Amino acid sequence: MYDLIVIGGGPAGLTAAIYALRKRLNVLVVAEDLGGKTNFHMRTGEEDRHLVINGIEVVARFLRELEYLDFAYKQARVERVERVHDHFLVKSKGWGELVARCVIVATGARVQLLDVPGEIKYLGKGLGYSATSYAPLFLDKNVVIVGGSELALRSAAEMATVARHVHLVGLRSELLGTPLGEKLCKSENVTILDGHQVTQILGNGFCNAVMVGGPQGFETEIETDGVFVEKRLFPNSEMVADLVDVDQNGRIVVDGMGRTNVPGLFAAGDVGTVTEQVLIAVGEGAKAALAAYEYLLPVL
Amino acid sequence: MYDLIVIGGGPAGLTAAIYALRKRLNVLVVAEDLGGKTNFHMRTGEEDRHLVINGIEVVARFLRELEYLDFAYKQARVERVERVHDHFLVKSKGWGELVARCVIVATGARVQLLDVPGEIKYLGKGLGYSATSYAPLFLDKNVVIVGGSELALRSAAEMATVARHVHLVGLRSELLGTPLGEKLCKSENVTILDGHQVTQILGNGFCNAVMVGGPQGFETEIETDGVFVEKRLFPNSEMVADLVDVDQNGRIVVDGMGRTNVPGLFAAGDVGTVTEQVLIAVGEGAKAALAAYEYLLPVL
Repeated sequence: MYDLIVIGGGPAGLTAAIYALRKRLNVLVVAEDLGGKTNFHMRTGEEDRHLVINGIEVVARFLRELEYLDFAYKQARVERVERVHDHFLVKSKGWGELVARCVIVATGARVQLLDVPGEIKYLGKGLGYSATSYAPLFLDKNVVIVGGSELALRSAAEMATVARHVHLVGLRSELLGTPLGEKLCKSENVTILDGHQVTQILGNGFCNAVMVGGPQGFETEIETDGVFVEKRLFPNSEMVADLVDVDQNGRIVVDGMGRTNVPGLFAAGDVGTVTEQVLIAVGEGAKAALAAYEYLLPVL
Repeated sequence: MYDLIVIGGGPAGLTAAIYALRKRLNVLVVAEDLGGKTNFHMRTGEEDRHLVINGIEVVARFLRELEYLDFAYKQARVERVERVHDHFLVKSKGWGELVARCVIVATGARVQLLDVPGEIKYLGKGLGYSATSYAPLFLDKNVVIVGGSELALRSAAEMATVARHVHLVGLRSELLGTPLGEKLCKSENVTILDGHQVTQILGNGFCNAVMVGGPQGFETEIETDGVFVEKRLFPNSEMVADLVDVDQNGRIVVDGMGRTNVPGLFAAGDVGTVTEQVLIAVGEGAKAALAAYEYLLPVL
């Protein structure tokens, strides 16, 4: 039996695992891959990456450390977690049932694709899913933000503080009445195309335009230096959704130390609070590991 | 008027400031010094520092960045924060009243000294205040843990998983009846001296022994490779204690994004949840900056 199984190999999971290893726990990481979203960084065609690099360096080092300790990693998809008496069964595809005294869920959240031609082709090449992480790189550039929700509205507002011009495509019309919606309607460098949708991503090596369909069916091409799809992320909490408290969006509910309502079950990173920030996920992974260690201490 | 004043220049405050600068906020850090506890790292006489270095490197880089942007830093002690209409007055000793739309309190927590001869002399030279951060460095060594509370008990239990022998001096006797207390009583490599107190720290360049006084007044010398004073930390929350919700220990109560009960007032790091971990403070600083940015977005 493991002391701790960490599900997920992104920044939160890797950090939790390294903290647990340093505390000499018998720990196993079960993940489909290591590195998480840090493997998919946007290239903007420029080399100005200092803005996103700090957290990535920390994670890269943790990753090397874990790869070296390969007994602590099994590549597998976890399908279900069950609590049996005072331990947990982690049911994986590939490695069967694994058993641990406690579990940290650090499976992150997945983006919603637009599902239009060109999207996969230009992913990471001018097309991304986290405007807030990259806004400073789009100083004085033209940006298209795609999405219907408050997330898209906030992303457009942030981008508008740096970009030359922002097109916000597909916002739900009722959000135009919020304080931020009203502000954006008045902004000279923002064009809101509510009731429109993106039908195609165009480019030449890097994404340079989108096709947008209007409510009457007319299509327009909008030139751009970057496209951000800002739809709500889906937390990858399915394997514990009937075991632990999740909110209406499926996010695992945790306290300030990553504890869920189930003793011995912890969560860290975007599967709980979605921020899509490497350094935040790192901090949460460390917290959950400390909380798990405190939970285990009487039986170590 | 500043968009944001960050009070405190440790890992949480520095990270919050750098995130805010990247988001182009008009931000000011007010702190008595920069670097916080990362300036006071324990030297154990060995060079094995890889265990604590990752977070420190991140903070060091943020520190250089902020020193370069010296318009964003004022060295001062903040005595009081008041909310007036929709902004905050930050009353400092040295720079008078400073005004901001929102405030992040990242003032950390201070250790309780033992106040015995030798303590200041050997601080950082074999004597420290966070056993959990340094436990892996004391593999197969002798360690003295000093303190009466659960924190001291947990620290001794953790240290006992790696050290050759642990002396726990001054534990409150009622904690011997807890599961962890009972476990430690049975541990062969733990000696619990409840009802005793440390009267002096001895050494020769590095701390190598403590004098311990017993309930009958006899004194004994205990040789050791390291001493950890594990008394409860005091959060530096006095300047906002009558403005914001604090718990019974004086810690500022925050939600998962560092928001307090006062709109526009945020907290990050050990002044909220005490973990004494650089990477956790970094993550919390980033969170509070994102929450502050979201709060400010309608007026930017």
